[in-house]
Amino acid sequence: MGDSIDDLSERLLAFARARDWEQFQSPKNLAMALAGEAGELLEHFQWLTEAQSADLSPEKRRAVAHELADILSYLLRLAERLDVDLIAATHEKIAINEVRYPAERVRGDARRASEYED
Amino acid sequence: MGDSIDDLSERLLAFARARDWEQFQSPKNLAMALAGEAGELLEHFQWLTEAQSADLSPEKRRAVAHELADILSYLLRLAERLDVDLIAATHEKIAINEVRYPAERVRGDARRASEYED
Amino acid sequence: MGDSIDDLSERLLAFARARDWEQFQSPKNLAMALAGEAGELLEHFQWLTEAQSADLSPEKRRAVAHELADILSYLLRLAERLDVDLIAATHEKIAINEVRYPAERVRGDARRASEYED
Amino acid sequence: MGDSIDDLSERLLAFARARDWEQFQSPKNLAMALAGEAGELLEHFQWLTEAQSADLSPEKRRAVAHELADILSYLLRLAERLDVDLIAATHEKIAINEVRYPAERVRGDARRASEYED
Repeated sequence: MGDSIDDLSERLLAFARARDWEQFQSPKNLAMALAGEAGELLEHFQWLTEAQSADLSPEKRRAVAHELADILSYLLRLAERLDVDLIAATHEKIAINEVRYPAERVRGDARRASEYED
Repeated sequence: MGDSIDDLSERLLAFARARDWEQFQSPKNLAMALAGEAGELLEHFQWLTEAQSADLSPEKRRAVAHELADILSYLLRLAERLDVDLIAATHEKIAINEVRYPAERVRGDARRASEYED
Repeated sequence: MGDSIDDLSERLLAFARARDWEQFQSPKNLAMALAGEAGELLEHFQWLTEAQSADLSPEKRRAVAHELADILSYLLRLAERLDVDLIAATHEKIAINEVRYPAERVRGDARRASEYED
Repeated sequence: MGDSIDDLSERLLAFARARDWEQFQSPKNLAMALAGEAGELLEHFQWLTEAQSADLSPEKRRAVAHELADILSYLLRLAERLDVDLIAATHEKIAINEVRYPAERVRGDARRASEYED
């Protein structure tokens, strides 16, 4: 087993194909499944303080790691279905954000930054 | 610029540090930001049929690619903050799902599969 | 027990107070909890076709009704915490949408409508 | 205009019908739209502390009120489409929670409570 994102994406595609689940994996449905997993992630943190969220027990941390894994899995299935190069798209988006949020203007102020968000 | 997930994660950390935004990036807050982006992803697909969701215009596809990028970005920041190896965690979770959803039992039936979900 | 939204809101506040849970119910945390429940709602529908989603079994319909109840509960707790008159705010927002989406211009086209969304 | 939930639900149905939008409002699509609005709600709070989230500026508070209105609107459309009595379902769910989370056992501990959640 390799450790690259491409290996992971191929393993997820093979998993879906072995179960004949590609038929259910329209981009619309995958977007819902991803958002459902994002909801499960929230549930781990909703009653914790910010400090507690950074100091999880090993059991909780493992459960959260598996939620992150579920999100990445649907993200990779979506990228495959839409023929999007996820790594390249993310570098592209970061480049856009580097222009949109110049370090000297937004330093230390995440709240102001979000006023400029699309 | 490399094309690996590690390069991307480092670039995102540098982006946050240059803006002094790490202070806002508690796991709790990052989970919220990730779920917010998942909500934006949904909005692209909510009034489309499944077929339309698989046949996006180039402009729409690019906008969706940037939402996927935003989600990956927050996912990588979360993994970094929680010291989770995201690729390894995802392989681990797939292995769990391979046992939980045996191909011969769930073939062609995504709906039954979800009855077994935790 | 009455059947008004005010009675419901008061019952939810009493429920929280009896458990000393108001201390956890900051608007930030309640927004997370609401979004987590919205994620659970999605999970009921993610692998269904649109037609199937309109023709649920009695068991499934009851489970979905309880998800809607959870969402309304957090919505009412949020409105109470923020001192927002939820019914009035919704009439106000509908009035805005009546101007923003004139019937004759957007008739039969939900997709065009969302291009004008904020 | 009345101030009851039924009046609101009827106004929302009339709004959809005048635009011939009922055709897009399958329960599946409405669940996505609701979750999308929940995502927008999160974005208002994601970089705020809990204390800041309880002390919004008038402008921000009004924007949040309109997000709550959007969520209630989709919730009422969903209840109408699924023929669910939302107020009754919420009283029913609270009664379940009163048994599930006895005040004397969970007092002051929202985190323990969520361990018992479905």
